[in-house]
Amino acid sequence: MREVFQTELLEVQDRLVEIAELVVIAIEKATKSFADSDVSIADEVIEEDAKIDELAVSLDELAITILARQAPVARDLRIVVSALRISASLERMGDMAEHIAQLSRYRFPEKVIPKGLTKTFTRMGELDVEIARKLVKLLRTQDLKIAAKIRDEDDAIDKLHLRVFDKVLGEKWKGDTTGTVDATLASRYHERFADHAVSIAKKVQYLATGDWLPTD
Amino acid sequence: MREVFQTELLEVQDRLVEIAELVVIAIEKATKSFADSDVSIADEVIEEDAKIDELAVSLDELAITILARQAPVARDLRIVVSALRISASLERMGDMAEHIAQLSRYRFPEKVIPKGLTKTFTRMGELDVEIARKLVKLLRTQDLKIAAKIRDEDDAIDKLHLRVFDKVLGEKWKGDTTGTVDATLASRYHERFADHAVSIAKKVQYLATGDWLPTD
Repeated sequence: MREVFQTELLEVQDRLVEIAELVVIAIEKATKSFADSDVSIADEVIEEDAKIDELAVSLDELAITILARQAPVARDLRIVVSALRISASLERMGDMAEHIAQLSRYRFPEKVIPKGLTKTFTRMGELDVEIARKLVKLLRTQDLKIAAKIRDEDDAIDKLHLRVFDKVLGEKWKGDTTGTVDATLASRYHERFADHAVSIAKKVQYLATGDWLPTD
Repeated sequence: MREVFQTELLEVQDRLVEIAELVVIAIEKATKSFADSDVSIADEVIEEDAKIDELAVSLDELAITILARQAPVARDLRIVVSALRISASLERMGDMAEHIAQLSRYRFPEKVIPKGLTKTFTRMGELDVEIARKLVKLLRTQDLKIAAKIRDEDDAIDKLHLRVFDKVLGEKWKGDTTGTVDATLASRYHERFADHAVSIAKKVQYLATGDWLPTD
């Protein structure tokens, strides 16, 4: 029984990694569609988000089955409960990538990134992609050094997020209302994407150390 | 043992209701601070959000203890797992109320609601308050008719959310950039608040019917 359980836990971990890998592809494509106003890539992100949702639901079913059949305790129980939460956060990261892709779709054939913010959004996109890649590694290895790096990159994104508002609300801002709306939403989506990654990193840390951490 | 377990499940339910009641107060105060540019009420919302976070963490601890000690199966297991998710959504609803309060704080002494959108935001706020109140009832009674009403009100909020963008992006829009940013963020926060309520309603429905529903 114990052996079956360990195999099932590994299955949970593998599935989390699988979903995280799809999130990497989603954010890579979303930031590309956002930078290049590429509608066909945006459509791919939107279409492929359904797969992420589906895998998250399926993982939740597996986790609940494990809870019912194996009645795990202590660290094993924490792994299963954390998996439920991590899958919810990954699912939201997929949604954020989808929202970013949708913004470029709405504005097509116009560029969605307002003038004066190209560099800022390029950097935010790169950081989000980097964070998603690190998340895959973190879920695979539980190496807490990676969790610390994700937090650092999230700090960098938070600074860029504030910079977007400084620019938009500054005297030199020449964007029109559409540009202001797009910049506001896009910045929020990029920032939330990273927040969810930090939230997952905290859960992995909780698993490793046993310290209780806030739900978000 | 069985009796202890049923008592613990009731405790879980009571605590969810308790958190939901604090969310009602948070959104009542947040929409008031937003409408009246009342900084002292905004500060109360921001301060009191810590209590919601704390109760959510504490409920999660209780749920995990129940899983470990009682090893519930079938419907009982679903109740405990759903409680974990519902507490996460309630915690986010508190965050949305806090974000709305923060917006009015940032703009003080200016009015945060841009001209031309007063009625729309007043209605969105009323609907969010109504949804939160219905959520308390739903968690207390598991009456699925209430779940359906929450979905209807969420549909109404989604329409208002679209109207905000129509207004802001329309030719008659006279708001400045700050007004555009505030309207964009405030509308998003109001809409997300209601989304989380719908997500909770789905979980309650899942408990009642056993149908599996997506994570969001």
